[in-house]
Amino acid sequence: MSMEKMSNITIAYIGGGSRGWALGLMSDLAAEEALCGTVKLYDIDKDAAICNEIIGNKLYDRIDTKGKWRYKAVDSLKESLTGADFVIISILPGTFNEMKSDVHAPEKYGIYQSVGDTVGPGGFMRAIRTIPMYVEIATAIKNFAPEAWVINYTNPMSLCVKTLYEVFPEIKAFGCCHEVFGTQKVLACALKDIRGIENIKREDIKINVLGINHFTWIDRASYKNIDLIPVYEEFVQKYYEVGFDGVDDGHWMNDTFACANRVKFDLYKKFGLIAAAGDRHLAEFMPGNWYLKDKKTVKRWMFGLTTVDSRIEDLKKRLEKSRRLVSGQDEFIINQTGEEGVRQIKALLGLEDLVTNVNLPNKGQVKNIKDGAIVETNALFRKDSIAPIMAGELPDHILSIVNRHISNQETVLKSTLSENVKMAYTAFINDPLANLERKASLELFKKMIENTKEYLPEFWLSDLCVK
Amino acid sequence: MSMEKMSNITIAYIGGGSRGWALGLMSDLAAEEALCGTVKLYDIDKDAAICNEIIGNKLYDRIDTKGKWRYKAVDSLKESLTGADFVIISILPGTFNEMKSDVHAPEKYGIYQSVGDTVGPGGFMRAIRTIPMYVEIATAIKNFAPEAWVINYTNPMSLCVKTLYEVFPEIKAFGCCHEVFGTQKVLACALKDIRGIENIKREDIKINVLGINHFTWIDRASYKNIDLIPVYEEFVQKYYEVGFDGVDDGHWMNDTFACANRVKFDLYKKFGLIAAAGDRHLAEFMPGNWYLKDKKTVKRWMFGLTTVDSRIEDLKKRLEKSRRLVSGQDEFIINQTGEEGVRQIKALLGLEDLVTNVNLPNKGQVKNIKDGAIVETNALFRKDSIAPIMAGELPDHILSIVNRHISNQETVLKSTLSENVKMAYTAFINDPLANLERKASLELFKKMIENTKEYLPEFWLSDLCVK
Amino acid sequence: MSMEKMSNITIAYIGGGSRGWALGLMSDLAAEEALCGTVKLYDIDKDAAICNEIIGNKLYDRIDTKGKWRYKAVDSLKESLTGADFVIISILPGTFNEMKSDVHAPEKYGIYQSVGDTVGPGGFMRAIRTIPMYVEIATAIKNFAPEAWVINYTNPMSLCVKTLYEVFPEIKAFGCCHEVFGTQKVLACALKDIRGIENIKREDIKINVLGINHFTWIDRASYKNIDLIPVYEEFVQKYYEVGFDGVDDGHWMNDTFACANRVKFDLYKKFGLIAAAGDRHLAEFMPGNWYLKDKKTVKRWMFGLTTVDSRIEDLKKRLEKSRRLVSGQDEFIINQTGEEGVRQIKALLGLEDLVTNVNLPNKGQVKNIKDGAIVETNALFRKDSIAPIMAGELPDHILSIVNRHISNQETVLKSTLSENVKMAYTAFINDPLANLERKASLELFKKMIENTKEYLPEFWLSDLCVK
Amino acid sequence: MSMEKMSNITIAYIGGGSRGWALGLMSDLAAEEALCGTVKLYDIDKDAAICNEIIGNKLYDRIDTKGKWRYKAVDSLKESLTGADFVIISILPGTFNEMKSDVHAPEKYGIYQSVGDTVGPGGFMRAIRTIPMYVEIATAIKNFAPEAWVINYTNPMSLCVKTLYEVFPEIKAFGCCHEVFGTQKVLACALKDIRGIENIKREDIKINVLGINHFTWIDRASYKNIDLIPVYEEFVQKYYEVGFDGVDDGHWMNDTFACANRVKFDLYKKFGLIAAAGDRHLAEFMPGNWYLKDKKTVKRWMFGLTTVDSRIEDLKKRLEKSRRLVSGQDEFIINQTGEEGVRQIKALLGLEDLVTNVNLPNKGQVKNIKDGAIVETNALFRKDSIAPIMAGELPDHILSIVNRHISNQETVLKSTLSENVKMAYTAFINDPLANLERKASLELFKKMIENTKEYLPEFWLSDLCVK
Repeated sequence: MSMEKMSNITIAYIGGGSRGWALGLMSDLAAEEALCGTVKLYDIDKDAAICNEIIGNKLYDRIDTKGKWRYKAVDSLKESLTGADFVIISILPGTFNEMKSDVHAPEKYGIYQSVGDTVGPGGFMRAIRTIPMYVEIATAIKNFAPEAWVINYTNPMSLCVKTLYEVFPEIKAFGCCHEVFGTQKVLACALKDIRGIENIKREDIKINVLGINHFTWIDRASYKNIDLIPVYEEFVQKYYEVGFDGVDDGHWMNDTFACANRVKFDLYKKFGLIAAAGDRHLAEFMPGNWYLKDKKTVKRWMFGLTTVDSRIEDLKKRLEKSRRLVSGQDEFIINQTGEEGVRQIKALLGLEDLVTNVNLPNKGQVKNIKDGAIVETNALFRKDSIAPIMAGELPDHILSIVNRHISNQETVLKSTLSENVKMAYTAFINDPLANLERKASLELFKKMIENTKEYLPEFWLSDLCVK
Repeated sequence: MSMEKMSNITIAYIGGGSRGWALGLMSDLAAEEALCGTVKLYDIDKDAAICNEIIGNKLYDRIDTKGKWRYKAVDSLKESLTGADFVIISILPGTFNEMKSDVHAPEKYGIYQSVGDTVGPGGFMRAIRTIPMYVEIATAIKNFAPEAWVINYTNPMSLCVKTLYEVFPEIKAFGCCHEVFGTQKVLACALKDIRGIENIKREDIKINVLGINHFTWIDRASYKNIDLIPVYEEFVQKYYEVGFDGVDDGHWMNDTFACANRVKFDLYKKFGLIAAAGDRHLAEFMPGNWYLKDKKTVKRWMFGLTTVDSRIEDLKKRLEKSRRLVSGQDEFIINQTGEEGVRQIKALLGLEDLVTNVNLPNKGQVKNIKDGAIVETNALFRKDSIAPIMAGELPDHILSIVNRHISNQETVLKSTLSENVKMAYTAFINDPLANLERKASLELFKKMIENTKEYLPEFWLSDLCVK
Repeated sequence: MSMEKMSNITIAYIGGGSRGWALGLMSDLAAEEALCGTVKLYDIDKDAAICNEIIGNKLYDRIDTKGKWRYKAVDSLKESLTGADFVIISILPGTFNEMKSDVHAPEKYGIYQSVGDTVGPGGFMRAIRTIPMYVEIATAIKNFAPEAWVINYTNPMSLCVKTLYEVFPEIKAFGCCHEVFGTQKVLACALKDIRGIENIKREDIKINVLGINHFTWIDRASYKNIDLIPVYEEFVQKYYEVGFDGVDDGHWMNDTFACANRVKFDLYKKFGLIAAAGDRHLAEFMPGNWYLKDKKTVKRWMFGLTTVDSRIEDLKKRLEKSRRLVSGQDEFIINQTGEEGVRQIKALLGLEDLVTNVNLPNKGQVKNIKDGAIVETNALFRKDSIAPIMAGELPDHILSIVNRHISNQETVLKSTLSENVKMAYTAFINDPLANLERKASLELFKKMIENTKEYLPEFWLSDLCVK
Repeated sequence: MSMEKMSNITIAYIGGGSRGWALGLMSDLAAEEALCGTVKLYDIDKDAAICNEIIGNKLYDRIDTKGKWRYKAVDSLKESLTGADFVIISILPGTFNEMKSDVHAPEKYGIYQSVGDTVGPGGFMRAIRTIPMYVEIATAIKNFAPEAWVINYTNPMSLCVKTLYEVFPEIKAFGCCHEVFGTQKVLACALKDIRGIENIKREDIKINVLGINHFTWIDRASYKNIDLIPVYEEFVQKYYEVGFDGVDDGHWMNDTFACANRVKFDLYKKFGLIAAAGDRHLAEFMPGNWYLKDKKTVKRWMFGLTTVDSRIEDLKKRLEKSRRLVSGQDEFIINQTGEEGVRQIKALLGLEDLVTNVNLPNKGQVKNIKDGAIVETNALFRKDSIAPIMAGELPDHILSIVNRHISNQETVLKSTLSENVKMAYTAFINDPLANLERKASLELFKKMIENTKEYLPEFWLSDLCVK
């Protein structure tokens, strides 16, 4: 019987020319012996997809490759989706030019963003570029792969997933994000630091997760028979002022992706739950003058503003790396990434049970958030099924902030689909980061649309007579 | 049969020493021939209640008095409530000293409040003074008048009504507010101005109301067969820049209670619904730098900041007036106030059907607001029954703002009842007006508590080590 | 200004060849001076529509006609609907032949039905004939009169209204039924009998209504300041054994439409609320061996089984009457019917406020019934708006019976639309009247489908291999 | 660190004199090496508890005992609960005399019951005896062990669990039942029979469960990558007429606890989902004339009516066995029972994750059942936490039957707590098995109360003037 192994699986990878996630997926697939099949790489930059095809196929015959996969760059969404069992979506909506406007244009108005891809003016702009692309993708899935499981990695996560369900309500889509994993690692560090327990695997930190992507909360955490809430409490007291840096490799002072968890600690003191994302994301959900008032404030809270220049630098390195892998100068190192995509695929094929956090439309898994909002909670993955686990309720004072962002997301989606610039603008001004006077806010809104118009539908410009 | 008339009705008036509302009630009762009975006046200032007893009883034998009532100042809540068919609550929580702190203390931090009794730092402080008083009143009603209908006029309206239901869930209480009536008058003015139709009674402007007190919205309005939405649209276009002043007697430039409706017009342009309260109230629900950034901004939006000094002046006049009525120097003029309390009493006695707007716990009358929040919608008043009329849903972009305030209210109530200063503080900082840096916000919070400590339970001070 | 009067109103009457309702409508329109316009009569029996055109137009010039209307028989749904402000639907689905099978075929299996048009095997069969017709009508309304208000009078009421909303969710449709009015008359009789108060108008009996059509309940009732619940209690005690006959003209022993209210009284004793429909309807919602076990049982409960033969007799008389009106032998007598259709039209035009009971999709007006089920409650009619009034909750023991019928209705609709005979059969066997052994029940099901196949879509027959 | 093992656990066993479940628990505890501690046995029959104390303690020193436990018979609920980490409740409400009336008294009225402990007249009577006992137990838990996890095994399961939550809403209680496990075994048999796959462990049959106890349904089932729905479909076709007997040891013709699954197969054909309980239970939820019309019908459907005499015989054997274990004539055989109690305890202590089916108040895990009803679905057990897994919706035609029973349960609980015999009677007559004429039904009701009055509160008799 082949029940322990599944062959002939077809994965459509949309954004398959990626120089980051795509290599990670290849690595994870190669390391997993239970699965084999074909990955069809689709990207608007076909050359990039071809590079990945070459890199991926080199793995096939290597001895240390446990999972054997063929990679194939294809020409169209239709071609990638037809016959797919799984669809992975990981795209960059626009270029780093647009991202530069997203992140940095608001700085002239005193609005600093540490990431700029989820909420705030940057998240807004990225969303209105992304939604039309997701309408196209969802439509194609509906037509060519209606039964496939769809895994989204693109940001803004909530709005990407929401768009998929809006266009094709029967879609079997969910969104994955590793920010919660990072917080599990913080908890493992706390356990080591406070209780001296070492070598704890992230997966063994059991948590209850609830909230929205990048603004998720943990209200129960345990490791075996140990309740981690008092442990974390002690950890926060110890490191509140000085920060704690040892979770990942980088240090917040020279790595714009790192942080010392002070925002997380502060939110714990303020709200009593563990905020489960990196500080750079968390800070953007709060009023602008709390953690992101100016560069000095950011420094005091010990996290970094990720500049788009640093991203461009980073991409250059990855492009060079890709070139060397294609040419054979470098050899691909198979190394599990810690991402869960492949484990999720295994679970959906029936090969194991998996409980993990995912982004899905709310059907009551967060009791006091409205149905249909995209929430992040644990879910049980089994053969062809993802069943959310009931996560309970958010406390009122957190809920109030979460609801603001959910309302904004819904307004952004509705206004984009109905081409209503005026309605969209109400979301722009309601964001807690965008606390501007009315005149300044309209000016910024127009400028950011102008900056990114190449990737926006026509109506955004023609209708800019908003008052 | 005496079915058209009801005698021997007993009304308990809590705050019955009032120099404003109490006289209005006397006037309305005297003008209504279908009802007669006794009003029991209870006030912590018994002398004030005795004055009103004297004034009220003088009306009894007058020829022009259609409704014959006896007034009696009583010594305790228990005495006033025992045997009451109706309970009216209209109290001032604290004195004008506390109100001075509520309204003006935040100005040093750049926070201006036009009323300061509903939301914002002032509304917060007033609420935490009022809630313990309402706990006492609700308990007394539960013990001494559990079957009585209870009409609340005190602000903060939502939290007063919510406290009553929290303490005594079976209470038959509702909250009345005339702000919506004012907006009906604006609509009547629009009809006159745009269409030339004159002499329209407020009651004949039919509206659908939904929202929370002082931040209520109208999404349908008609006069006979005329849809008023396009009429209002035209009216807004005409007066958006210059304002419209003719609704009431005062002018915004020399009457701190008046406004030129520019905030209302602006909200219509922004949100597409008719905001149904005075501009002074509406402005306080929005981000502080919109309409209340500084005095210049307020002036540009053509409304007034009601100072507490002006209220003190006003009270002096009313006290003098009261003295003259007691002594007989002045004669009481019976003159219907336009308030609906007496009509509501008639309807609850079965003498007529009445559809009007009231504040009640949500049970679905506003579909997308959570159950239990105090909402303001129309309701049908009939014999011993108030049935809310389903008002539909608020649009997302308004809902997001409303939900912020509802969350804050719930946090204020919960934290006050559970004596949790830290939780209360999260509501204080989440208010859209209170957009301060964290340090400033804590300073203001402590100062305002200190200022008003005479009227606050002990725990607010002892626990002020909030960080 | 013509605001007190509306002219040029267009009404589409579907089923406009009716010999009953159509004449009633003419009478009510002629008696109402505030309205005038055109009624377009559409019927699959065009000759019948032409007769009504002739009868209606004769009224136009009569002096005693206050409301002037032109009547016009038209050829198609499209023609009737185009330009319509209001649509009235009152059709007979099939002929009396089909109705004969509905009502009498089950008698061989020991199932007696007093009406057979709502629930039970008869209601089921009538529903599956009617639903396809309503799909056609709803589609036509969507295409030709999407803004019109649609008034349904056809049974089975709940399923007719539900089909309209299923096909065209934005439809402005509601269902009217006079059964509740009859119960208001019973209450007026009780008031006269127990308290001696005479000449009470039905409309002045104020009630709270909740439930589903023909199985509606009253939990609050008053007349002016009198609570009618204790009055009804006394009335029930007095007449429980002997019945009360004086509500309408007929007597239950010789009028198959009449009853002595014993079923209603029994339900009150059992459930504690006032059942608000005629006994013939109420009995059909309960288990078959309660009130409809056999003819003797029916007689003991003092109501009639309405035979289809009696309906045929009745129709003959109405046809003859129609002929005499067309020919001019008889003169049409203008006489208000007591139906509320015309008052509802006036209210929807903005000419008056109206609170009355209607059938609408539940959005929470009955708190413990699922959303979307067609419920009957009070609603407030105003200009272009029907807002349900919140009716509260049904007690659990009644709810359980109501939910059974709602589930059945939903299954009937779903199965008809998806052409799933097997699913439909589960509704047939779950009806409380249809408490048969499995073999007998399948036999009856097949026979009744066979009997009425002329009016059923093909799939009902081809798929009759249900096991 | 002892994180893999937990010692000093205290279990309170209410009904600890049991001759069945108690021995099973001893066996399972002895076989589990991760746990040790004390079991406090409380029973109204203290001698029985002492027997179990003796039997249990003999295990302590045996070499093959992996989990070391001390057993102690105690005198009061208070003594058993004080200090307990877990509470197990497994009691017999009344004696077999009362059960005889429950099961057999209705037979004179043509009502046959195969178990008589859940629904039907027997389930009703058992419930009204049990509820007062559970009020007492819940109160004691509230007072003496509010933090303990409470596992209920007593029937009627739904009402036992509901009573616990009604009396003490913060209780951490859940109900366990092995009926679903039996259906997993049926699925394993199907897989063997249809696909030839052998030696499948029940736990590896992955299912989604939804419904109420003893009337639970499976809408998704898989074994590794195999979808079991088509497998079961084939299995049903093959064995529909002849039944399938090989699941357990017994045969339905000579074992009153066994069945040939024909009812289960028939329900699958009728409703399209897999009914997940033994046929004896399932049959009782359907109309009486389907599977339980008379003994012949039961035989045709190939299941047994479990007589109380057979239970008495069975008990005799178990008493004799107990005697021999106490005296040492027999040696206790440690043998895992297949029950999950001990695994659940491990999971709640944090030693492993567990997904299994439990009975809990609905908070949305079954989307279309009302909140608060006791539903059976999967849940995730982790350290000090049981989080229900969202099970989706029941199809309408099943929901309608489930809702009838839920309504009845709520009515039974409410009426018992409020001592309202009349209200209780409405539940009695609404049960699908109790389809009697009104007179017969009242007679039966009174007789069954009379029969079991020794175990009923006074008011049931004094108030028996129900009409």
